Amino acid sequence: MTAIDDLPVRDELRGQSPYGAPQLDVPVQLNTNENPYPLPEELVARIAERVAEAARNLNRYPDRDAVELRDGLAAYLTRTTGFPVERAQVWAANGSNEVLQQLLQTFGGPGRSALGFEPSYSMHALISRGTGTEWISGPRNADFTIDVDAAVAAIAEHRPNVVFICSPNNPTGTAVAADTVLKLYEAAQAARPSLVVVDEAYVEFSHRASLLPLIEGRPNLVVSRTMSKAFGAAGLRLGYLAADPAVVDAVQLVRLPYHLSAVTQATALACLEYTDTLLGYVGRLKEERDRLVDALRGLGLEVTDSDANFVQFGRFADTHAVWQAILDQGVLVRDNGVPGWLRVTAGTPAENDAFLAAVRAALWPPTPSDARACFARAASQEL
Amino acid sequence: MTAIDDLPVRDELRGQSPYGAPQLDVPVQLNTNENPYPLPEELVARIAERVAEAARNLNRYPDRDAVELRDGLAAYLTRTTGFPVERAQVWAANGSNEVLQQLLQTFGGPGRSALGFEPSYSMHALISRGTGTEWISGPRNADFTIDVDAAVAAIAEHRPNVVFICSPNNPTGTAVAADTVLKLYEAAQAARPSLVVVDEAYVEFSHRASLLPLIEGRPNLVVSRTMSKAFGAAGLRLGYLAADPAVVDAVQLVRLPYHLSAVTQATALACLEYTDTLLGYVGRLKEERDRLVDALRGLGLEVTDSDANFVQFGRFADTHAVWQAILDQGVLVRDNGVPGWLRVTAGTPAENDAFLAAVRAALWPPTPSDARACFARAASQEL
Repeated sequence: MTAIDDLPVRDELRGQSPYGAPQLDVPVQLNTNENPYPLPEELVARIAERVAEAARNLNRYPDRDAVELRDGLAAYLTRTTGFPVERAQVWAANGSNEVLQQLLQTFGGPGRSALGFEPSYSMHALISRGTGTEWISGPRNADFTIDVDAAVAAIAEHRPNVVFICSPNNPTGTAVAADTVLKLYEAAQAARPSLVVVDEAYVEFSHRASLLPLIEGRPNLVVSRTMSKAFGAAGLRLGYLAADPAVVDAVQLVRLPYHLSAVTQATALACLEYTDTLLGYVGRLKEERDRLVDALRGLGLEVTDSDANFVQFGRFADTHAVWQAILDQGVLVRDNGVPGWLRVTAGTPAENDAFLAAVRAALWPPTPSDARACFARAASQEL
Repeated sequence: MTAIDDLPVRDELRGQSPYGAPQLDVPVQLNTNENPYPLPEELVARIAERVAEAARNLNRYPDRDAVELRDGLAAYLTRTTGFPVERAQVWAANGSNEVLQQLLQTFGGPGRSALGFEPSYSMHALISRGTGTEWISGPRNADFTIDVDAAVAAIAEHRPNVVFICSPNNPTGTAVAADTVLKLYEAAQAARPSLVVVDEAYVEFSHRASLLPLIEGRPNLVVSRTMSKAFGAAGLRLGYLAADPAVVDAVQLVRLPYHLSAVTQATALACLEYTDTLLGYVGRLKEERDRLVDALRGLGLEVTDSDANFVQFGRFADTHAVWQAILDQGVLVRDNGVPGWLRVTAGTPAENDAFLAAVRAALWPPTPSDARACFARAASQEL
């Protein structure tokens, strides 16, 4: 049998493993930040209707420029942020991963570099490497906020061509203040003209407003978004960006022609028609996220402040053992490789109850040192 | 207003234009090799049904490995070629463009090169460049067949990491004999272990059998396919490959996770259920393609032998003028930049009649030198 290493693959791919969360068949899956609420049946019917319409013309290539969809996304951004956005400022692709890949092909690539503040969404580094862009790991504070001075210094030192700012940050849940983004943008422009990408995949769950209005007058600032989370449509693979129209023009130079299928466009348009209903689920999930934060702190655990639909909790001496112990209770959470920490997605109330019960079971009885630390933290939090 | 060149884009992108055929709203569109037959209404209903089913789970990520779809594609290949193919040998992505991009990210990329025999599908060169792979233009005979000796010499000289063989070739329609592919494969392996990609996007329209069985015992040979043409589903964007399972494993290292949406997978599966009906349209199109070849030759034009759903015809001193004159009659054909030649897609009988009438009108009255050449060719063909 032939193995990968018998093939003439690129040297840097030898010995690598594909990216992706383990897919295990367990009752409660809280590991990939999916929205737990299925689309309402009325919307399912509307999708079928819109897709049937598109399928009648499926022998033709799709609208290469996704005009109607970009109009819909622009209207959604305008309505939810109060900042007016037009079609010419919006671009869409198969998941925000493809949006980011197109940006890196245009503004990164061989001989260029990208910098992000880690831990963060690991695809930023992976897509950088996949496009031949050198990856530079920038710093964060111990509480996972961005240390502005250290970040500015890192930008000045490395002069990256692309800077990633993930807000709210995955996997920590940490939102970034507008003021911080502005300082990093200025530092990035001072070092060399470079692209700053604000990844707002989870912004609809945030306590803070979107950073979208910052694109005004800043042609090198891009905000990326997705319908995977707030729209409950991870299966759709619809990511998009908002930026100066010149950025949208520029990615046309690298996008594969007809990259976005007619059925994807039709389904996304149907989902946009149901924005109000879907944002209602977002409201419920924010409440559940806050409940998870409180409950985990109530158990004496450390919890990172979260503006997303997931919560980072810890700290554990043996993270994998805790992950496994929670899994043994039928609940799958995510070990993102941040030492001492795990991440749980906010699910339905019942799923979250199951998760909290699993955590209690997993952590009981505590080791003597865990128990001491837990009591100390509980005392300091005056619980 | 900001222009692309005001942004920090890669130097090699400056001054470039995006790839894509002009999209003009004319009555008869025979420029992008689309299948002119809309999907039957029964299949449209089945698509709606399958997509609704998928949409009920759309809040979850799609099957990252597209297991059911790859089973379906493997069964289709097995049935139509007689060569047994299994899921592990098949991979699917958003159009064969994305399949080729993944192959180039894995086997090409910075510091590596790809060679194709031009004129050929221009995306081979474009995706190579887009992935940082050096592009090498290999030779063809004047009749657009591959000159085996010259091709072997080019491979020996340039030692490319990837070799593209397009059969039937776009835009010429030329099929490549199995024997030729084997000689080029051996030359490519002798030069260095390199990947040979046989692009069979149009193979269902060929007079020859698929080259798929050549993958047996050749782990560095890949056959790429698409549902855009034979399945009449250009709007679906579903490309796939068949190769040694190790090749499928290798592209997992570069594919974006969850690249293929659940609605795309559902729609493709519905189309596969209607294979017999759709291949019936292919039969009609082959007859129409042959009719176009005969009719264009009957007009005294030169026509390249075609194994695809399109026909290359010429030769014209002023190709653009002829293209425009045909367009003036309401028929859009393609100027692929092959000097002296145009390409027309086989449409419905009525569309092809309109095209032939437009050609007659466009070429009449001929210039004296065109008329002389035409009479001479007609005489030599004993028409």
